Amino acid sequence: MVALSRIGLAGLAVMGQNLALNIAEKGFPISVYNRTTSKVDETVERAKQEGNLPLYGFHDPEAFVRSIQKPRVIIMLVKAGPPVDQTIKTLSIYLEKGDCIIDGGNEWYENTERREKAMAELGLLYLGMGVSGGEEGARHGPSLMPGGSYEAYKYIEDILLKVAAQVPDSGPCVTYIGKGGSGNFVKMVHNGIEYGDMQLIAEAYDVLKSVGKLSNEELHQVFSEWNKGELLSFLIEITADIFGIKDEKGGHLVDKVLDKTGMKGTGKWTVQQAAELSVAAPTIASSLDARFLSGLKEERVEAAKVFTSRGFGGVLADIAVDKEKLIDDVRQALYASKICSYAQGMNLIRAKSIEKGWDLKLGELARIWKGGCIIRAVFLDRIKKAYDRNPNLANLLVDPEFAKEIIERQSAWRGVVSLAINSGISTPGMSSSLAYFDSYRRERLPANLVQAQRDYFGAHTYERIDVLGSFHTEWFKIARQSKI
Amino acid sequence: MVALSRIGLAGLAVMGQNLALNIAEKGFPISVYNRTTSKVDETVERAKQEGNLPLYGFHDPEAFVRSIQKPRVIIMLVKAGPPVDQTIKTLSIYLEKGDCIIDGGNEWYENTERREKAMAELGLLYLGMGVSGGEEGARHGPSLMPGGSYEAYKYIEDILLKVAAQVPDSGPCVTYIGKGGSGNFVKMVHNGIEYGDMQLIAEAYDVLKSVGKLSNEELHQVFSEWNKGELLSFLIEITADIFGIKDEKGGHLVDKVLDKTGMKGTGKWTVQQAAELSVAAPTIASSLDARFLSGLKEERVEAAKVFTSRGFGGVLADIAVDKEKLIDDVRQALYASKICSYAQGMNLIRAKSIEKGWDLKLGELARIWKGGCIIRAVFLDRIKKAYDRNPNLANLLVDPEFAKEIIERQSAWRGVVSLAINSGISTPGMSSSLAYFDSYRRERLPANLVQAQRDYFGAHTYERIDVLGSFHTEWFKIARQSKI
Repeated sequence: MVALSRIGLAGLAVMGQNLALNIAEKGFPISVYNRTTSKVDETVERAKQEGNLPLYGFHDPEAFVRSIQKPRVIIMLVKAGPPVDQTIKTLSIYLEKGDCIIDGGNEWYENTERREKAMAELGLLYLGMGVSGGEEGARHGPSLMPGGSYEAYKYIEDILLKVAAQVPDSGPCVTYIGKGGSGNFVKMVHNGIEYGDMQLIAEAYDVLKSVGKLSNEELHQVFSEWNKGELLSFLIEITADIFGIKDEKGGHLVDKVLDKTGMKGTGKWTVQQAAELSVAAPTIASSLDARFLSGLKEERVEAAKVFTSRGFGGVLADIAVDKEKLIDDVRQALYASKICSYAQGMNLIRAKSIEKGWDLKLGELARIWKGGCIIRAVFLDRIKKAYDRNPNLANLLVDPEFAKEIIERQSAWRGVVSLAINSGISTPGMSSSLAYFDSYRRERLPANLVQAQRDYFGAHTYERIDVLGSFHTEWFKIARQSKI
Repeated sequence: MVALSRIGLAGLAVMGQNLALNIAEKGFPISVYNRTTSKVDETVERAKQEGNLPLYGFHDPEAFVRSIQKPRVIIMLVKAGPPVDQTIKTLSIYLEKGDCIIDGGNEWYENTERREKAMAELGLLYLGMGVSGGEEGARHGPSLMPGGSYEAYKYIEDILLKVAAQVPDSGPCVTYIGKGGSGNFVKMVHNGIEYGDMQLIAEAYDVLKSVGKLSNEELHQVFSEWNKGELLSFLIEITADIFGIKDEKGGHLVDKVLDKTGMKGTGKWTVQQAAELSVAAPTIASSLDARFLSGLKEERVEAAKVFTSRGFGGVLADIAVDKEKLIDDVRQALYASKICSYAQGMNLIRAKSIEKGWDLKLGELARIWKGGCIIRAVFLDRIKKAYDRNPNLANLLVDPEFAKEIIERQSAWRGVVSLAINSGISTPGMSSSLAYFDSYRRERLPANLVQAQRDYFGAHTYERIDVLGSFHTEWFKIARQSKI
């Protein structure tokens, strides 16, 4: 009789393999299982090669489950949706009361809540745990967002604290997120924010390249430089890397990559949830739209012809710019837009937290995103501090530090967006961020007209600025009378 | 034994009353029913006063149903959701094979499909019919969007053709939309477009008022003038009316209306469906966001204080403008943005039509929106003609006429958005429309960088511009090697 493993992991695609190796490396004996058994052998082989890690492979689900010490904990890393249900079905036959399953995929939060309920009826515990950081993160330290059964969380907290990315001064990038599907929801918004960050960087690239005429070498330099300052982050770092990479056929690889962007669903869900929760998230929405429009490559090629033949091509006009000033302005525009994007994401999380009674701590979320995940950045420390200063902050924009940073950058921000507009370069992320800021900081919006229109044609009533109550006016009748 | 009615109508709030009176006025004897019986008596009284119309009231659902000639057709105008199910339950007890129920509310299209299926099992027919035009439209000629059972549609086509708004040269504003929930879906997108139109008008108002310093009298004149040209439409007309209306307490009523906009759900659904169908609809989305932000009145008041205390108020800087030129430029910006908004709405409908196999005719939809509904406008005739020219038009933007109109207006459009940005006035609808245009007409977008990033951190692979296939690069490894 061999010693039992502390934990199990089912689903051995790259993410699963890497997370299992990470757990084993931290000293927790782990059993692994996969339906396609070659993946099991592959993982066992890697565990040997990467230092004889305490990882044990199983081809049979029953033997796999029985190899784990009670109460058993099994992490699943399989495709979201039906494969998760299938895996649960396969494993739960052998599980016993008090055992726990953790879904580490990008699952829709309501599926997790449905499963948690179904599992509870069998006496089993359930966690939906967002895992961010890609393959590298999974192997060497991801950001972990576990939500669901607190009892289950406490039982494996020691593992998660060691497996997660470690950030000096702020600790391991994991925390108990909250009840139900909150872990999945937070991960979903994390991904939405990631979409926003990537789009804003792409726009900065576009303006610098198309208006500023920067070469890839210069872009490599600029992003490397930016990565030393306020923009220091994983995404800026890899962007700098990308501009430095040559293509085997000559030139730079980035120029050979087709301008069509894929997506997987979490960005879409974020935008749909923002609409559902009445939270404006235009930066995130515009990054999703940019992906949709990127996909219409053939249509864009045709449209470019239509408009080029009528007098203008891709870039409307070459506007003379001071390159150094442009670079600095774009950096500021990117930073200010980023604040808006995170403000939207954070408010989306809060709105859901209120709706579901999850009691999520926004500052703590910023903390666990400081390392391991795709959006990791020094910037997140500023967000954490903003919520430390005021946990009830209505919007990041009005935090004194962020407000100051925006004001310092707004001239550059407006300048870059105007320049792009007059050059015919679209900056949907930066311009929608700016519109968000200018709407949010405005005491009086033109919404009075919209409400008057609604009352005119639909008798939807309106409020007044001077008297409390709900009013309706016979606009049509009055207008007709005054015309007579 | 009295003669039987040709049709029945259940649900006698204002919309229902008005539609019933409209039907009766066109010479079709109608029975009406409402759970709250006072509404029945009210409607009967109105029918008497409005010319002894052939309208018969019933307090009892059974008597109501039996008073209608077979196969019976009953239009419901009740609140979407559970009240519709409740009304169906009440009425269907007395219905017989071949009878038909029509839901005239703003129902979620999937609910209609579910009900159509359930009704079919009972041998009953079902239609989901979008009705637009508000109370006035219902009474004197709405735009009707019936979808579902074609058999049921044919049976009442004669009624609908007479009840709908009549537009010279293009006929009654009704057509059989398509199968299933297509009538509801088309009405939903109509409402999304309506959100966009209203927001764009509000932005035009804001720029003219806040930057151009136009008075309400001047705004009344400007919108009245605009309503004689390419912008001629119901919404521009009522906007002109609104600026002409004085408040009893002095000044203009529009200035007393609180800048908080309500909403009912169809705009939200439109945005969620756009995300679901991978269709970029930023103008419509930004109009929804603008409503959300308008609702945060208290937060905006606080934010305005934060930023005013730091050196700028609502309007950032007074920029000297030529008033006449500004008015003309704003008109052009509004028109160009409107093209983008309709392009998004139409493409959203087409995407759904393809998904569901509805085979919707976009030009025909533009035709039935020319009269009766809230977005009625001469502009819709241009859209109809664009689809007449090319039913497979990929996007309204590349129709030769619209392309020409946009090119003529793009200088003014870019100018207005830049001016707004530099004045600190948000124009989310106009600027997101412009970004949509500039993205769509661009052969090469910076999406290559986004895809490179995705391949870098998630091995999502990419396509190349020069070779077919799917590629993956070990970006991290190469970048690390070159750093050594």
